[in-house]
Amino acid sequence: MTPDEFRARGRELIDRIAEYLETVEQRPVTSSAAPGDVRAALAEHPPTAPEPWPALMDDLDRVIVPGLTHWQHPSFFAYFPANTSYPSILADLLTAGLGVQGMSWATSPACTEVEVLMLDWMQELLGLPERFRSTSGTGGGVIQGSASEATLVAILSARWRATGGTVNATGDTTRLVAYATSQAHSSIEKGLRIAGIGTDRIRTVAHDESFAMRPDALAEAIDADLAAGLVPFFVCSTHGTTSSGAFDPTLELGPICRDRDVWLHVDAAMMGIAALAPELRWVNDGVELADSYCTNPHKWMGVGFDCDLYWTADRVALLGALSILPEYLRTTAAETGAVPDLRDWQIPLGRRFRALKLWFAIRLDGVESFRSMIRRHLGLTQELAGWVRADDRFEIVAPHPLNLLCLRLVEGDAATDAWIERANASGGALFTRTVLDGHPVLRVSIGARTTEARHVAAAWDLLRSTI
Amino acid sequence: MTPDEFRARGRELIDRIAEYLETVEQRPVTSSAAPGDVRAALAEHPPTAPEPWPALMDDLDRVIVPGLTHWQHPSFFAYFPANTSYPSILADLLTAGLGVQGMSWATSPACTEVEVLMLDWMQELLGLPERFRSTSGTGGGVIQGSASEATLVAILSARWRATGGTVNATGDTTRLVAYATSQAHSSIEKGLRIAGIGTDRIRTVAHDESFAMRPDALAEAIDADLAAGLVPFFVCSTHGTTSSGAFDPTLELGPICRDRDVWLHVDAAMMGIAALAPELRWVNDGVELADSYCTNPHKWMGVGFDCDLYWTADRVALLGALSILPEYLRTTAAETGAVPDLRDWQIPLGRRFRALKLWFAIRLDGVESFRSMIRRHLGLTQELAGWVRADDRFEIVAPHPLNLLCLRLVEGDAATDAWIERANASGGALFTRTVLDGHPVLRVSIGARTTEARHVAAAWDLLRSTI
Repeated sequence: MTPDEFRARGRELIDRIAEYLETVEQRPVTSSAAPGDVRAALAEHPPTAPEPWPALMDDLDRVIVPGLTHWQHPSFFAYFPANTSYPSILADLLTAGLGVQGMSWATSPACTEVEVLMLDWMQELLGLPERFRSTSGTGGGVIQGSASEATLVAILSARWRATGGTVNATGDTTRLVAYATSQAHSSIEKGLRIAGIGTDRIRTVAHDESFAMRPDALAEAIDADLAAGLVPFFVCSTHGTTSSGAFDPTLELGPICRDRDVWLHVDAAMMGIAALAPELRWVNDGVELADSYCTNPHKWMGVGFDCDLYWTADRVALLGALSILPEYLRTTAAETGAVPDLRDWQIPLGRRFRALKLWFAIRLDGVESFRSMIRRHLGLTQELAGWVRADDRFEIVAPHPLNLLCLRLVEGDAATDAWIERANASGGALFTRTVLDGHPVLRVSIGARTTEARHVAAAWDLLRSTI
Repeated sequence: MTPDEFRARGRELIDRIAEYLETVEQRPVTSSAAPGDVRAALAEHPPTAPEPWPALMDDLDRVIVPGLTHWQHPSFFAYFPANTSYPSILADLLTAGLGVQGMSWATSPACTEVEVLMLDWMQELLGLPERFRSTSGTGGGVIQGSASEATLVAILSARWRATGGTVNATGDTTRLVAYATSQAHSSIEKGLRIAGIGTDRIRTVAHDESFAMRPDALAEAIDADLAAGLVPFFVCSTHGTTSSGAFDPTLELGPICRDRDVWLHVDAAMMGIAALAPELRWVNDGVELADSYCTNPHKWMGVGFDCDLYWTADRVALLGALSILPEYLRTTAAETGAVPDLRDWQIPLGRRFRALKLWFAIRLDGVESFRSMIRRHLGLTQELAGWVRADDRFEIVAPHPLNLLCLRLVEGDAATDAWIERANASGGALFTRTVLDGHPVLRVSIGARTTEARHVAAAWDLLRSTI
């Protein structure tokens, strides 16, 4: 493709994206494609010669877009908010166009420095502890691809600290024990498994009726393991669980962990970003007691996936766990300690210039736009909760202080399951099924950038009409 | 930002990217920024109100672009090829614009199906074994963010298989032993460390004078560990080492691993893609004996980072190692087994629609364009090698069958080090220093999309004039 063809096609694609986002509401939220349909509609073998642009655009219209679940649809109430925004899309374009690698400071100084600066900006905007700031001397932040990776980095840092670094030589993880509730995200178990902590050494700490971790149960579990000669090393406190949006009480868990020298990680992937609104800063209560913390602008801030923010207060443990320095990656800049090499803050070596997404979103749309979006979603959720409460066929099964509402039919589990299936089959909106305390539940997550009152009202109509 | 503003700014950004790539040659390859310069030139605190677009573009021109190492520069001879292309940039734009999540088939069917199809296309284009194909029933492929992640996935699959899956419960990795040469990429040690295999259990297998693994040394090391009651579980055979481009002899290593039931991973991240040219398919010799394999279109195929291709012949071990199924991720489609949920093929949960990059590049630029680029780079490398051989001040220190040439000054190590520093300080080209057999070496990696004979000739002038 020539530069001039790129100019022409690029303009066309910009228009197509704007049109897609402006009209996505007119599509069903989910695809009607059955397994194998998309592949069957495309060429089974690669072309031997270049194809014309219209051939791709035709496949895009005919196969790809109809084969999508539309996460940017205003009636997308499934999983978690995954809103992107126009500035974020432009930043991703710029990232691709510059095509630089940010594995070390020296491999593109601006990539590292803008990223560190964006983490400091976000520390301010979220009101996070000073000890997470790059300038603290002991802590700092980095963009991870996902909260799963942030969790794994936290686990590895904790593993290094609990073993005094010997794990890097011995690989012996057999006495380490980790703690979370049954409501913690699946990435906690996955991260622990990857790091060599199997299910035999993962304690499911009891939760209360709000699905929040019980501090007494945590202390008891840790002390029992200590008495058995094991090494409690990692606690995950979730701020906004995936299933129901529960908040573990970090303010109470923190001292328990600190007294017993256990790493405390706060997973606020889905809801920590609400702290952009000052009146919602309580979502991060207790984080000053944590060794590490993550939250996702790629969920509820209009910054497209992938952009998870990970902060730690213990840079030494992080670098002990993850840094390896072969000859071909040595640089003078890093050896002076003046700048970080962010490859040592993550699992992969390579890294894209993802900080541009934050930089564009914060500067172009501005923090007030995120705040008003979050507040709008909260208002819509509370309005929906009111309607649900007034209808005695439904039951709200968990606290809903933010943008996630969990409900079931009072008629029972089988009825609830059938109802969820019917509601989702309509294509008019999409919800997620989960299980709380053994019972199936429908989750309504209100977080798309363009979701307005009328979309929530329509969803409520749908939910009532599909009983 | 309104849709119309997005249209206008998007067009402007497309033009800026075209102009950047057309004129990047006029810039020094590296930035003159000292640590801290970039940050100091930007606002230390986040803005409280939205800023106008020109303010960002001004910072882009004034601070960001001058703060980059230009990986797309035709005189970039450092690290590894990292060429992108116009179709790939457009595909990244589309990925950002659609804003979908491909963690499960159900979360966007087209995202999963196009990806699986692209892996099958690439299996054909590279001439890889049928058993890596999605249709093989036992194997399959997936896009990973980086070869580091592919390596970790291979290690975890091997760990699961060697322990009969018990590692998921016990976390006991203490008897597992892994094997690679000193020339293997640092991500091998990092991946092993993450998976709970420390340096005490990583054997550095001797290499021959071409820096390739010695099969006799591998067999001997494995047998010694077996005799000691340990569990050899993972061998990494590199096809194109980072430092010198050496090829471990997989055809000879394969039977050794198979006889002893050890997982064989082939890391062809940097050079496996050369097999796009049929006459270079030898780069993957022996891969039919491997349990897993990876190579990077984001290095030498004009597909922008992040796009590593990972194939395994043992899907059962992969899923055993990585799948976890919480209630909120259950889907009917996946439970029928008709389609894969690619979250179980990788470390993170979330995933972007990265297959579009391959789809755009293969269909728009076409495979012949990649072949001719690779052949051009090979020709330029051999031409440079001829010039070096004819000048008795230089010594070529490793075989150079592809696009990587390693040389030193015959005068000695101190002179070589000083020379590398002077050459890179010029800004006219960028090379990487490495160490081979204890001696510093300058690597010339010829792989940028726009590198022509004149750029290599200028690099040679630079290397001679900075002695």
